Amino acid sequence: MKININGKISNVKAVWYEEPVIKMIDQKILPETFKIVDINDTKELFDAIRNMTVRGAPSIGAAAAFGVAQAAALGADIEEAGKFIKSARPTANDLFFAVDFVLQHKGDAKKYAAMYVDSIVERSRLIGLNGNELIGNNKKILTHCNAGALASVDYGTALSPIRMAKESGKKPFVWVDETRPRLQGARLTAWELVQEGIEHKVIADNAAGFLMERQQVDLAIVGADRITKNGDFANKIGTYEKAVLAKENAVNFYVAAPLSTFDFTIENGRGIPIEIRSEEEVKEVKGVAISPKESMAYNPAFDVTPNRFVTGYITEYGVFKSSELHTLKDKGKESIIEQIEDM
Amino acid sequence: MKININGKISNVKAVWYEEPVIKMIDQKILPETFKIVDINDTKELFDAIRNMTVRGAPSIGAAAAFGVAQAAALGADIEEAGKFIKSARPTANDLFFAVDFVLQHKGDAKKYAAMYVDSIVERSRLIGLNGNELIGNNKKILTHCNAGALASVDYGTALSPIRMAKESGKKPFVWVDETRPRLQGARLTAWELVQEGIEHKVIADNAAGFLMERQQVDLAIVGADRITKNGDFANKIGTYEKAVLAKENAVNFYVAAPLSTFDFTIENGRGIPIEIRSEEEVKEVKGVAISPKESMAYNPAFDVTPNRFVTGYITEYGVFKSSELHTLKDKGKESIIEQIEDM
Repeated sequence: MKININGKISNVKAVWYEEPVIKMIDQKILPETFKIVDINDTKELFDAIRNMTVRGAPSIGAAAAFGVAQAAALGADIEEAGKFIKSARPTANDLFFAVDFVLQHKGDAKKYAAMYVDSIVERSRLIGLNGNELIGNNKKILTHCNAGALASVDYGTALSPIRMAKESGKKPFVWVDETRPRLQGARLTAWELVQEGIEHKVIADNAAGFLMERQQVDLAIVGADRITKNGDFANKIGTYEKAVLAKENAVNFYVAAPLSTFDFTIENGRGIPIEIRSEEEVKEVKGVAISPKESMAYNPAFDVTPNRFVTGYITEYGVFKSSELHTLKDKGKESIIEQIEDM
Repeated sequence: MKININGKISNVKAVWYEEPVIKMIDQKILPETFKIVDINDTKELFDAIRNMTVRGAPSIGAAAAFGVAQAAALGADIEEAGKFIKSARPTANDLFFAVDFVLQHKGDAKKYAAMYVDSIVERSRLIGLNGNELIGNNKKILTHCNAGALASVDYGTALSPIRMAKESGKKPFVWVDETRPRLQGARLTAWELVQEGIEHKVIADNAAGFLMERQQVDLAIVGADRITKNGDFANKIGTYEKAVLAKENAVNFYVAAPLSTFDFTIENGRGIPIEIRSEEEVKEVKGVAISPKESMAYNPAFDVTPNRFVTGYITEYGVFKSSELHTLKDKGKESIIEQIEDM
């Protein structure tokens, strides 16, 4: 992704590997501070995933793939390392998919981890090309959370089509849901859009419905953490709200995700475990308390949106309806190498 | 309302009048700081309404009623003062209703302002009694923004039935939408519930839909800033989202408001002016920036919920369906004195 630090433009990925160190942008402290952190072992990686230094399903998958390679380089038990890494967060499918893929090629973990992550970048690029077909000139696009380059190593999932629309001269405008409690929209999506020079405005999550009702949203694109066999999907808390409101207001609602986010072993959204995070994420904003100390809070990190609210799934293989996802499923049976050849 | 300051329990109203000074709880700095501020003239009152030192439609109306009385006491042109006070905020109907009522009795402004405010308190109490009929034992109630005693001098509108449910031993539990951008839920509703010892949890606004979908919400009650002839109503931004989600999930959705909030001169919600507030309310939380300085924001303070999403309107005269509101309208033709006699 393009970043502009004090006027110097460079190209950086959200996560990469310099054996035996995993490097990643610290997503907790953006947009104020741009910092690359070193991950030196499996425990540090576990913490970085859990505390959201790296977040976004495909980026978590990439970090996890490198984590298995790192464990191998450090001479650790890579099966144990993989199991531990997979326990960092429960909802995103990419985490499990990536670890399992590298473990299947444990004899050459570094090579296969690199191949996996390269493939995530290529898949994100293709999601952008496929999604761009859905975006007309001067369209107003709503997005929730951050499904940008930060979330998927490069390009993004939901933001990749918007990047491509910008590059092809279509002048997209983005309504950025701030995405409480962790504010990934206000902090990360807005930061990415500033870097790319894409016009946008940040809104309170509460305002998305109002804008849809006033016909100020042409389409919505979000990412996903896990998509089940029938097309139900988990994504950042609030996604379900926006999807219901999109349907109510006849706004097309798209989910953008690579094959690694699909979990065809689960029939529907009821089977997706929902991570409950700390009360403090709700009760504090950047360490500043916003509610009485006597009050408790409840903080589900994800919700599940039923397939009937989804207009289409934007993937590296094209745009699918929920009824067509079985054709995508067949791709999952191929190896990543075969999949890349098919793209 | 009952408040507990350092273990000392007292009874305070959100706004009152000690000629020629209007006294009010500073709602900007709760829950950290409990402070009563003095309003000495019309300009100070205008600022206090605009900057939300006093907020909530009925409390704004009460402050405005006292404002006309104050202008009279200070020997000012009370017609001009009334016009100026009415220009402080555009959406809440009570502001216009209260000023017009006192101006109609300008010969004895102080007496009629007091009568108006006493009537607001009595109406809020009756809303509580009527709304309590809708609440069973151990029910989980969602509310948005603050429609408590702070918002309506005492008792509250949406919170009044919940207070009454608590007093009648029903053990209500409240899901408190934090209500970005101004956080009136996390700051004010949670504070009131702490004072009253009512069980509650604060949630990100994004989590309300998830909780409804998981059947963790038995009913929703919100306040209103203006209700039109057909029952469409303006309330804090995000109310429309929660109402759509309530309907989607078969959750009963009630609006609690006194007659002063109804504007029968407007046919439907399209006619309600929506206040657009400053970008900083979105871009900062308690003065701390949350988005890149280069990003812009958009901040509509209210949205409009169509009548079809409302199960019932809880008023001082009973609970009405939208199709029954014409019977409530007839009450508006009586003077407040006659209305009080009818209650």
